[in-house]
Amino acid sequence: MTLSPEIRAALECVTTATLTTVLLKKGVRTAYISGPVPFTDAAKGRRFVGPAFTLRFVPAREDLSTPESWSSPRSTRAAIEAMPEGCIAVADAMGIADAGIFGDILCARMAKKGVTALVTDGMLRDGAGVAGTGLPVWCKGTVAPASVASLNFVGWEETIGCGGVCVVPGDIIVADGDGAVVIPAALLEAVTTAAVEQEQLEAWIMQEVGRGVPLPGLYPANAETKARYEADMKKG
Amino acid sequence: MTLSPEIRAALECVTTATLTTVLLKKGVRTAYISGPVPFTDAAKGRRFVGPAFTLRFVPAREDLSTPESWSSPRSTRAAIEAMPEGCIAVADAMGIADAGIFGDILCARMAKKGVTALVTDGMLRDGAGVAGTGLPVWCKGTVAPASVASLNFVGWEETIGCGGVCVVPGDIIVADGDGAVVIPAALLEAVTTAAVEQEQLEAWIMQEVGRGVPLPGLYPANAETKARYEADMKKG
Amino acid sequence: MTLSPEIRAALECVTTATLTTVLLKKGVRTAYISGPVPFTDAAKGRRFVGPAFTLRFVPAREDLSTPESWSSPRSTRAAIEAMPEGCIAVADAMGIADAGIFGDILCARMAKKGVTALVTDGMLRDGAGVAGTGLPVWCKGTVAPASVASLNFVGWEETIGCGGVCVVPGDIIVADGDGAVVIPAALLEAVTTAAVEQEQLEAWIMQEVGRGVPLPGLYPANAETKARYEADMKKG
Amino acid sequence: MTLSPEIRAALECVTTATLTTVLLKKGVRTAYISGPVPFTDAAKGRRFVGPAFTLRFVPAREDLSTPESWSSPRSTRAAIEAMPEGCIAVADAMGIADAGIFGDILCARMAKKGVTALVTDGMLRDGAGVAGTGLPVWCKGTVAPASVASLNFVGWEETIGCGGVCVVPGDIIVADGDGAVVIPAALLEAVTTAAVEQEQLEAWIMQEVGRGVPLPGLYPANAETKARYEADMKKG
Amino acid sequence: MTLSPEIRAALECVTTATLTTVLLKKGVRTAYISGPVPFTDAAKGRRFVGPAFTLRFVPAREDLSTPESWSSPRSTRAAIEAMPEGCIAVADAMGIADAGIFGDILCARMAKKGVTALVTDGMLRDGAGVAGTGLPVWCKGTVAPASVASLNFVGWEETIGCGGVCVVPGDIIVADGDGAVVIPAALLEAVTTAAVEQEQLEAWIMQEVGRGVPLPGLYPANAETKARYEADMKKG
Amino acid sequence: MTLSPEIRAALECVTTATLTTVLLKKGVRTAYISGPVPFTDAAKGRRFVGPAFTLRFVPAREDLSTPESWSSPRSTRAAIEAMPEGCIAVADAMGIADAGIFGDILCARMAKKGVTALVTDGMLRDGAGVAGTGLPVWCKGTVAPASVASLNFVGWEETIGCGGVCVVPGDIIVADGDGAVVIPAALLEAVTTAAVEQEQLEAWIMQEVGRGVPLPGLYPANAETKARYEADMKKG
Repeated sequence: MTLSPEIRAALECVTTATLTTVLLKKGVRTAYISGPVPFTDAAKGRRFVGPAFTLRFVPAREDLSTPESWSSPRSTRAAIEAMPEGCIAVADAMGIADAGIFGDILCARMAKKGVTALVTDGMLRDGAGVAGTGLPVWCKGTVAPASVASLNFVGWEETIGCGGVCVVPGDIIVADGDGAVVIPAALLEAVTTAAVEQEQLEAWIMQEVGRGVPLPGLYPANAETKARYEADMKKG
Repeated sequence: MTLSPEIRAALECVTTATLTTVLLKKGVRTAYISGPVPFTDAAKGRRFVGPAFTLRFVPAREDLSTPESWSSPRSTRAAIEAMPEGCIAVADAMGIADAGIFGDILCARMAKKGVTALVTDGMLRDGAGVAGTGLPVWCKGTVAPASVASLNFVGWEETIGCGGVCVVPGDIIVADGDGAVVIPAALLEAVTTAAVEQEQLEAWIMQEVGRGVPLPGLYPANAETKARYEADMKKG
Repeated sequence: MTLSPEIRAALECVTTATLTTVLLKKGVRTAYISGPVPFTDAAKGRRFVGPAFTLRFVPAREDLSTPESWSSPRSTRAAIEAMPEGCIAVADAMGIADAGIFGDILCARMAKKGVTALVTDGMLRDGAGVAGTGLPVWCKGTVAPASVASLNFVGWEETIGCGGVCVVPGDIIVADGDGAVVIPAALLEAVTTAAVEQEQLEAWIMQEVGRGVPLPGLYPANAETKARYEADMKKG
Repeated sequence: MTLSPEIRAALECVTTATLTTVLLKKGVRTAYISGPVPFTDAAKGRRFVGPAFTLRFVPAREDLSTPESWSSPRSTRAAIEAMPEGCIAVADAMGIADAGIFGDILCARMAKKGVTALVTDGMLRDGAGVAGTGLPVWCKGTVAPASVASLNFVGWEETIGCGGVCVVPGDIIVADGDGAVVIPAALLEAVTTAAVEQEQLEAWIMQEVGRGVPLPGLYPANAETKARYEADMKKG
Repeated sequence: MTLSPEIRAALECVTTATLTTVLLKKGVRTAYISGPVPFTDAAKGRRFVGPAFTLRFVPAREDLSTPESWSSPRSTRAAIEAMPEGCIAVADAMGIADAGIFGDILCARMAKKGVTALVTDGMLRDGAGVAGTGLPVWCKGTVAPASVASLNFVGWEETIGCGGVCVVPGDIIVADGDGAVVIPAALLEAVTTAAVEQEQLEAWIMQEVGRGVPLPGLYPANAETKARYEADMKKG
Repeated sequence: MTLSPEIRAALECVTTATLTTVLLKKGVRTAYISGPVPFTDAAKGRRFVGPAFTLRFVPAREDLSTPESWSSPRSTRAAIEAMPEGCIAVADAMGIADAGIFGDILCARMAKKGVTALVTDGMLRDGAGVAGTGLPVWCKGTVAPASVASLNFVGWEETIGCGGVCVVPGDIIVADGDGAVVIPAALLEAVTTAAVEQEQLEAWIMQEVGRGVPLPGLYPANAETKARYEADMKKG
């Protein structure tokens, strides 16, 4: 759950593509949150890293999902006030696509509180207003209807499902142009170390491809290629 | 949550079709659990009523969804042991269709404990074995893979989403050939009273249709038809 | 639109599988209504033929889809009263699956009026009650909510889309265990003649398969097979 | 149906997000057309308002959907010639995604006639050509095949379903970055008044969030916040 | 690929539910063919085992998928003649649901040749005729249109995808009420041995549940339960 | 399969929209690859033409889809090395959306070898890296997981299904902003000739629309319009 500045900085230089490969080698096949794409300009062309702060929605029920419910102690408002600076909010909207979980006001408050990013398997609303808040948002798109039309907020910091993946509060989220990936907290250090090495190797392979080296033997690297790579790394 | 024998008996004579109409008139549009159909022979041709006991699953994650997790205190096994006699278990499987939440052994234990029925927006497995337990089951079908392949059990007696509907522990579930409906606990008496009246009226209308009366004026009933209905009811 | 007793009788002996093949050869690829399956016992194991009487629904809108709208002159009730004996009602529900277009009362009235069958790309409600009316019904299944929850009836005897197919009032509908097929009225005679011949040929081929004849040359029939077939037909 | 310049100007300053909230409070839950997004550059970053001119398509049938049908009096060409200046064309394509309803020529003619915008739950074709016409278009995307491959045009100015919503000719359409919303004609004035007020309040709340005010009590506004808001409004 | 009578007999007593669990423990998570259910009466209530004989379809193209193509050497007819007795035909229809891959004539020939069963992620046609052939069929349902309308047969005994699973010719297929499972040929003996043991254990656990033993400690079995089980097994 | 520079140049000036119309007139209705859109900047705003080089994937199976399989002779690496300069690679990913078929390294090698473009009904991964290679890519989007997580490569230069269309090696692919179209090799010249004529006519019609000519009689062109068109063409 504690994310050191070193690990954050290291993960900011690793693609989510590499992270899923490393997690797969460690036995975790389901780590990629299916559905959300970079939505606001703030989310495009950059990578964000932070511990997950989870939110859970279920479908709306007219006797429960009322404008009045927005003032209840178990509301999205209360959840946002509880978010620590630097977290990435991950909202389980059960994939519901006909209402937006948040609009400009709630996103503005999240940005004000220093939330790093918002990731959801649902939609947002008032896309122009949300973009204006500067909050980096990964979602499936934008629609006009309010959450209360289709969604009922249940609670925060529970284990959730989001985009086909289980997210436990405090897991580390990394989000970039390919989407968002969950790193189980217990695997954080091992995954980071392996991912940094993998990125370095793949950068070297890209150089080799640029020189016209054919793929067989290069990628994946055979013994000779590995020797050449290690020699190059020693040279620096 | 307490379901009197009178209300249970009354609801056993009311179709879920009538219940959704009555709930709609009371402002609750989302009460029907979309997806589950009567699956075992025990579920076909009958109607079951009971308070909801909720179960929540999220997608599997290999570091969490292990055969070992089946022995943990937060397991489906522990949840089943906590089920009171007469309840209807409602399992939120997030609609995941590629693994069965339960097989014959867990269903046999539920039947043994006097659980009234099981309703889920997911699948079961070992359909023949489950049918043999005599437990009335509403689900989307049957597949071979175990829950651990795709699902991670999170907890019980939480507010859940199931088949597009919010279910709060203690809501009353009614399930018949058309599927399953949730009656919010606070509306139980009012809904039951109105539904029993509606059924009586519709039975009379069916008799009229059988006599060859055309629909306009009959259904919905205009003033004259209502008078005729009331006269007939007084006759008994 | 006029369906002679001879053509009706001929089509009652032709599978919808054969009809789609014949229509394909005549250039009509989209004739099969995708979605509806035989639902009531009255629809199973038999074949029904009749001219299409069309119904059109659109999604519900709360200011339009009210219980009051059921009494309006443009209601499903009025449409049912306008159905001629022997027609097959085809209802365009836009594939909406979360409400039933009709329940037991409306189906009972249709049965009383001598409607041959009901085909829809939507759902029915009160499945047990509908089955009890004896009306042969092809639909996608049964749910509890009333049409007013999700559907707004617009009119009848318009050109509609149903299950991915265009249906013009007066087209001929044939429905059996494989589903329902639309024969454009202008092609009725040509299709019937070709289909009867095709059925006769396929029945003979089935006999040949029963005798152990391998498929190549038999199906499709080469010149020698055709000669053998024609010889057999002459023998009678 | 008559849209005064004042109401048009007022609605051009109201987000579709706000409109759906106001409609929900007035009992209309289904007002958002699901699916279409701003497609041409002319549709992006602006908001358009106009009365609905409806078009209805059904699936193609080879004997009806021919290039020849394009010259018939009941063709898309005739419909386009009937469109009044300032209308928003709303096309019910039954959500069919494998053919485009219009290409560059038909869109160019619509632009020439002063049609305000085109909204459809289907696709367009020749996206580059369509963009070049300057017509603001909301649709689900662009594909190459012509409408005749999958769609059969039926008529115009009928009540339609589009993106899960019922649209009556003359309803008012508002389309912006979040998509398109239908305002029932009878509710136009009441909705506009309430929406303008709501926008003013939300703009003030955004300022408060910008000042660092936490959400509870602010949004939704409690009595004290409302008093503060009204005081600020009086100041002007 | 060679399936001994002993292994066939053993697997006929093991549920596909148990097989997927055993395969999962051996690292094969994707072994269940998603979609096909027992369709013909011959397929219901029994279990079939056989080596896979694969068929591959791609979408139709009008210049390739002609009635004439049925006589080509690379036709479904030729494939059927090549099927050995005792095989299970597995057809990759790419999940296409708007045409049937086979009708009564081709299924009759397969039955005549002693094919054990047919499994496909597509549809069949002429359901009544197919049922009459006595061939056990697992498929997604039945529609009227011929394969030529939507499917183009490509070849046989290739590696295919079927229902989300890779099937290599000669893998062993087991199909029962829960659907069909693929056992990679190389794992056949190990899987069979483990599955038989697992079935025996689960049968004993079911007896224990019948005696009223609670689930924790029983399933999965803890050390004490295992000891009790082994003692009971020794007694015989 | 041989694509002359003249035909390539001609097709580079014809929209895929026009090509599908011409193919439809020649009896080929299924020619448009459903799903892939221009993904990399190199694919946007331009049109590419080339003979199809096909790739086939099936779902992953853990005993087959291993990192080790990447070095096998039947690997994507070997397929890429076999691609001739100027081809368009078309990959059948069975529409699987939860893993990317290729990332930056494989795309960089394809660009280096002079492959014209990549078209797939699946996803790519490492979108930023892929964009950096300059390879024009049509796909459904980008995700993080590697192909090995969900896909098993089977072979190349086989007949495949891609996006609902059959592609034979050597068919001609044309891809632009509307997506990608397959021209059967045998129809190449006839389609090109007709398409160039169609484009010329439509360009003239667009001019007429620009002059304010109404649609009826213009598009489709009646006899008078055709005469006017031909006169204008003669003028040059």
